[in-house]
Amino acid sequence: MLRWRRESTLGRMQTITESTRNGVDTDRMFATLDLIKSQPELAKFQFRATNRWLGGAHNRSTVKDFYAAGGEDTTRTAAFELDAGEPAILLGADTGPNPAEYLLHALAACLTTSIVYVAAARKVPLTSVESTLTGDMDVRGALGVDPEPRNGFERITVSFRVSGDAPPEKLREVVERAKARSAVYDMVANGVPVAVEVATA
Amino acid sequence: MLRWRRESTLGRMQTITESTRNGVDTDRMFATLDLIKSQPELAKFQFRATNRWLGGAHNRSTVKDFYAAGGEDTTRTAAFELDAGEPAILLGADTGPNPAEYLLHALAACLTTSIVYVAAARKVPLTSVESTLTGDMDVRGALGVDPEPRNGFERITVSFRVSGDAPPEKLREVVERAKARSAVYDMVANGVPVAVEVATA
Repeated sequence: MLRWRRESTLGRMQTITESTRNGVDTDRMFATLDLIKSQPELAKFQFRATNRWLGGAHNRSTVKDFYAAGGEDTTRTAAFELDAGEPAILLGADTGPNPAEYLLHALAACLTTSIVYVAAARKVPLTSVESTLTGDMDVRGALGVDPEPRNGFERITVSFRVSGDAPPEKLREVVERAKARSAVYDMVANGVPVAVEVATA
Repeated sequence: MLRWRRESTLGRMQTITESTRNGVDTDRMFATLDLIKSQPELAKFQFRATNRWLGGAHNRSTVKDFYAAGGEDTTRTAAFELDAGEPAILLGADTGPNPAEYLLHALAACLTTSIVYVAAARKVPLTSVESTLTGDMDVRGALGVDPEPRNGFERITVSFRVSGDAPPEKLREVVERAKARSAVYDMVANGVPVAVEVATA
């Protein structure tokens, strides 16, 4: 089995080896898991975003730096920029998906990657993973018109269509395990303590 | 006061009138609030995202259609596409922000727009709104290495820097009210019921 890598471009090389399944290098996956088991202090990560208001409902987040495995990440050479907005009916100029739509995307993305990683670890080759997410909201809450409806979605429904080289029961098990391990599913389903600090000038 | 609008391009025109504050047309804002007060059935919205796996940790959401105020939206002519990924250390090829970073962006964007809208309604002219968000995670949870740490962030800290033509106390009141009305803050702080359905093929 030929293995050739340069540490500095590890992720981008995506060297195809016998251990690659669903686009995930499972040798590296298991090595990472073993390393974190033996040195739990390496498991402390911090992700970040900075945001700037651009007028009306238009604002932009920049995502780049993060802390991982004992140090600041140096592999990201460019920042990701994300524009948010609101459609006309919510008084914006449609400069991007709205924040609630971004939350649906975060949930879809995390469950999908969890499915792909769990399947890779369990030797299940996937051919496609698609999902549709819906979130129902009574906007009287967020608009402050009525104190009764909550501000956020009353409920979110995620519908997955998963296909791969495994029986339906096995594919369902993979989705169940992914749901039990997904970071964003945990946060959206269970909530997270959020501290908001304010400096004025 | 000159008012000129075409319904079909309502959001994009951003006609500047005396009622525009912080880039928000407050006449339209108050008209929308009055309409929803008088016809609460118009407050039922549904937002959506569809997602497709593209290999490894790379997946893409499409955001376009939504239901609002008694019908399907027709103002969005193009879809927004959002690419997610993971950095090398989490076995991806850095094809986009990771799902947890997208959640931070959703939270930043929603709190920021809420601040801008509340300030517009309260006649507070803002000059800048910036924020930095951090989320601390022990990845042993999401990686399934240890059952003790939760999968998601243990905590999120949001630091706002807000400036505008108002005393610091007034600006702080605006942020407090925005926090009390933000849809994504509510969801992230308190959680939402999430149903996951699976079809296999």
